[in-house]
Amino acid sequence: MDDSPQRAVQGLGSFPWYVGGTQVLGLACVVITGVWMGSYHGGYAWDGSGQEFNVHPLCMVLGLVFLYGDAILVYRVFRNESKRNVKILHAVLHLLALIISIVGIVAVFDFHNHNKIPNMYSLHSWCGMLTFVLFCVQWLMGLGFFLFPGMLMALRSWYLPLHVFFGLAMLAMSLATCLLGISEKLFFSIQHTYSQFVPEGILGNMLGLLLVAFGILVGYVVTREDFRRPPHPEEEALSVHFKTLTEGGGSPTSP
Amino acid sequence: MDDSPQRAVQGLGSFPWYVGGTQVLGLACVVITGVWMGSYHGGYAWDGSGQEFNVHPLCMVLGLVFLYGDAILVYRVFRNESKRNVKILHAVLHLLALIISIVGIVAVFDFHNHNKIPNMYSLHSWCGMLTFVLFCVQWLMGLGFFLFPGMLMALRSWYLPLHVFFGLAMLAMSLATCLLGISEKLFFSIQHTYSQFVPEGILGNMLGLLLVAFGILVGYVVTREDFRRPPHPEEEALSVHFKTLTEGGGSPTSP
Repeated sequence: MDDSPQRAVQGLGSFPWYVGGTQVLGLACVVITGVWMGSYHGGYAWDGSGQEFNVHPLCMVLGLVFLYGDAILVYRVFRNESKRNVKILHAVLHLLALIISIVGIVAVFDFHNHNKIPNMYSLHSWCGMLTFVLFCVQWLMGLGFFLFPGMLMALRSWYLPLHVFFGLAMLAMSLATCLLGISEKLFFSIQHTYSQFVPEGILGNMLGLLLVAFGILVGYVVTREDFRRPPHPEEEALSVHFKTLTEGGGSPTSP
Repeated sequence: MDDSPQRAVQGLGSFPWYVGGTQVLGLACVVITGVWMGSYHGGYAWDGSGQEFNVHPLCMVLGLVFLYGDAILVYRVFRNESKRNVKILHAVLHLLALIISIVGIVAVFDFHNHNKIPNMYSLHSWCGMLTFVLFCVQWLMGLGFFLFPGMLMALRSWYLPLHVFFGLAMLAMSLATCLLGISEKLFFSIQHTYSQFVPEGILGNMLGLLLVAFGILVGYVVTREDFRRPPHPEEEALSVHFKTLTEGGGSPTSP
């Protein structure tokens, strides 16, 4: 019980299974969203019709859930790669998530405007817009603090725990917004049969639970102590600064 | 910048403001829920009517949001009290949350059964029941692992990070379930006027955003490094075991 490195290795033995689990859950969410909109709501188009609306859930789950989650996981999955390369991959995956989510947001506004449906009145839209704006701010701040070469190490180490905390908080907000979107879509589409446990209702509910499971598993993998990145020589200068920030002396806020 | 204790004291200077913020937000959520059900939906009763339904949101926000959040915060607020007393307070607040949430759940089932409305078909009900069952399991496991005197220290230290992680994950699930409940209630009550930005719709949406803000602030206070409990002599034996669990050697998983 007292052999720390042995425990760490034991912990890492299960690591691929946890990461595999996140990918299975995340892909299942994307596929089920795609099939739901494809099979029950007539597929996809970009013509102002309901099929243009269908682009919205698919893009949001792909961008602000699956790619967002994977962008966070790269610090664990590529734990032995150069930090700089992992940072770039993290930024690129988030940029991809951002672009895909912009397509999804444009799709729903365009659908509403074509059909004279008011925008931004529901709790889903308020939570979604708040999450999207915070996501953009966080992406820009991440770029400025961690990839801009002139940034002071002291400022980086001040911002890092905030970046990590708000990254996870916004993933939770993004997932909660998806649950609201699923519920809203079900009440718009099958309000009178939802209570009879029709297949579409069960599919939507299952998708909601899978999204929750994805969020919990990603959160667990990135916060579990023995899954953290081991210290690398190039990061030593930075971790000295982390040590001054924490009473414990470790660098637990390092992503 | 290098004076760690000084930084820790500086950090603690803002601590009461953060805790005060959580209490203002949490109480605002309880009051707004109470006023919403009281003013827009006829108040409270226990007779199978819509007024019995109104007990449900009030109890859930009071129990599984406000008291749940406060039960987590006691480890930070009473950071210099004996760990045993804080543990008992944590368990008692969670027990209170559990009892109040049972009243809230009975209220909605009783309302449904009186009015022949099917139970457990919506995503809100699925997420809510999952959260409630996990909350009960976590409460019983917490009691067994941390308050049962015969429990092995090694088992406690194995379970502690899981207890802390799932405690926060379930608070997030509880908040997401509240958002789903608000959205559902608004679609049932004001479906045809919600898109015209009527006062009830805006009140419900604002309540949703306040719940999100409460969750984020509680999460921030309990995960911020310099708000953690300082090591106490009575906890030393336990923290030695934590050290064997973590590569960093600190005890960052301690609540």
